[in-house]
Amino acid sequence: MKSITQEARRKLDSLTKPPGSLGRLEDLAVRLCEVQGTLSPRTKPRRCVLFAADHGVVAEGVSAWPAEVTRLMIDNIRGGGAASSVLARAHDCALDLVDVGSLHPVPEGDTNFFVQRVRAGSRNLVREPALTVSEFDAAFEIGRAHAERIAQLGTRLAVTGEMGIGNTTSAAILTAVLVDVPPEGVVGRGAGADDAVLARKRLVVENAVDAARLHSKQDRRAAIASVCGFEIAAMAGFFVGARSRSMGVILDGSIATAAALIAEEVAPGTKHGLIAAHRSVEPSHAIALSTLGLEPFLDWNLRLGEGSGALLLLPLVDAAAVILSDMATFESAGITRG
Amino acid sequence: MKSITQEARRKLDSLTKPPGSLGRLEDLAVRLCEVQGTLSPRTKPRRCVLFAADHGVVAEGVSAWPAEVTRLMIDNIRGGGAASSVLARAHDCALDLVDVGSLHPVPEGDTNFFVQRVRAGSRNLVREPALTVSEFDAAFEIGRAHAERIAQLGTRLAVTGEMGIGNTTSAAILTAVLVDVPPEGVVGRGAGADDAVLARKRLVVENAVDAARLHSKQDRRAAIASVCGFEIAAMAGFFVGARSRSMGVILDGSIATAAALIAEEVAPGTKHGLIAAHRSVEPSHAIALSTLGLEPFLDWNLRLGEGSGALLLLPLVDAAAVILSDMATFESAGITRG
Repeated sequence: MKSITQEARRKLDSLTKPPGSLGRLEDLAVRLCEVQGTLSPRTKPRRCVLFAADHGVVAEGVSAWPAEVTRLMIDNIRGGGAASSVLARAHDCALDLVDVGSLHPVPEGDTNFFVQRVRAGSRNLVREPALTVSEFDAAFEIGRAHAERIAQLGTRLAVTGEMGIGNTTSAAILTAVLVDVPPEGVVGRGAGADDAVLARKRLVVENAVDAARLHSKQDRRAAIASVCGFEIAAMAGFFVGARSRSMGVILDGSIATAAALIAEEVAPGTKHGLIAAHRSVEPSHAIALSTLGLEPFLDWNLRLGEGSGALLLLPLVDAAAVILSDMATFESAGITRG
Repeated sequence: MKSITQEARRKLDSLTKPPGSLGRLEDLAVRLCEVQGTLSPRTKPRRCVLFAADHGVVAEGVSAWPAEVTRLMIDNIRGGGAASSVLARAHDCALDLVDVGSLHPVPEGDTNFFVQRVRAGSRNLVREPALTVSEFDAAFEIGRAHAERIAQLGTRLAVTGEMGIGNTTSAAILTAVLVDVPPEGVVGRGAGADDAVLARKRLVVENAVDAARLHSKQDRRAAIASVCGFEIAAMAGFFVGARSRSMGVILDGSIATAAALIAEEVAPGTKHGLIAAHRSVEPSHAIALSTLGLEPFLDWNLRLGEGSGALLLLPLVDAAAVILSDMATFESAGITRG
């Protein structure tokens, strides 16, 4: 890793610009070289993969939106009208949607929609474990296998995201448990919780974190599964699969980053395959990113999910790649410093 | 302006996402509506226009690079190997280069290269006025006419930048004089000044600001011309021309923003046609942006110039436009809040 980093910096310094003058774009170019393990990184073919699932904890009133919105948004993403659909199209990026556990079965039909429901939603984590260990493993494997599948199609860069009403609650709990920070610090408004919803969410998170920490002392895997979501487990598997193929993954917001914490615990080093797109307003996000040692590139107050933040960074990753591949060097342009 | 702003926010709130959840992308969408005066803004056809010129003040040792680099970089931009060439190509943006005052004549030849040299470089502002008022006016008119020309070609969005060794010195002086801030606060390292160069630059700027302020009390236009550069005057004219055609302009770094300060003084309201791409490391930049009431979208430690920062924002402006044009509304997707 070290050597690729240094070689990438050296290559950037040979290009016709004052050294370092492209600032964060140069950092992004270096990161792209690191995650793909090459000084000639490629951003095409690329593919956005979204994992969707429902969350039993929604019964506790922790979200501004009812659970049915997960299905409606699955339809909206498939129909091409969601933010992620529109951004993927604009940036010339194929989009896969994998249903790993929505409440209601949705008919298959289009080639980029995969129905692989482990269960009809997770259980309500306030009352019982959200996922069993074997359900967690099944979702994880779906994600890992999907990464393998798109790697075999030649995909060089993946963009990931999720859809699942209630999933910022699960992500907040997972972050507090995996990073070992106080639960007060990880709870945010998700996709638009008002004060009453936020108060309920806070209570749910605090109790769940306490319970999961105790549980974790006996059986850490079961503790993680007990507060996880199917789409989060699948994303964790996806990151591990992508890393084994040096695919490079653009990470989205707080839920994707909670999945990255899981992936790093399951397969240490997985974080070296990730590019952090942005820092969202969700408080658990900054904590998870800094734990993983990832410095995000956009600070745009995003809180939509669906891979939208990762898709926004995509054309800037393209820009970083073409700087490396297409710019003239001082030598080729015959320029010497005064 | 007010009404377009409110209508744009209302339109964004009708789309299938929690209100405001796309953060700064929504602000960018609103800004694009404002600068084009429409709720259906377009980012194509677009064109990047770079203005190039030399600066007599380079004789004072204020730059890390010799003046010849201006010509070498003109060749590099024309040849397609500069950062701006590469980024413009990657983002499907035509690129014009207008030589308004380089030291040495460069042969014309390609259709996107315009030789309109007012003079062989500006004079050394330490010893005499860099530009006369009539030279300033000539460069300003070249810029204004270029905006008019590309508007007639149907251009909806312009991206601007400059090339001119020594021009951060001129931009720093202009910013201090036009905003009336202490000269110590506006001087930075430009494209890579070391401590010795920086010390000389500081002295030049402080003396020039004092002189221009005195001069300004008798004749403000002559005072501005006396510390200006040809490419800066041309950009100022370009902004005024673009505004009169509601074209929308993505502003680059400290030099472009100093030109925007001039444009705003010549034709108040010109600032309403500008989208601030980024906040560079050059200290005068943040001062000029905040004077103009412009909030930049990227904080990427850029200091290259050549329109590179503005070109980096371009695909995100595309993203803002497609969100407005292509996303489903809650009504069309049949989603209601719980």
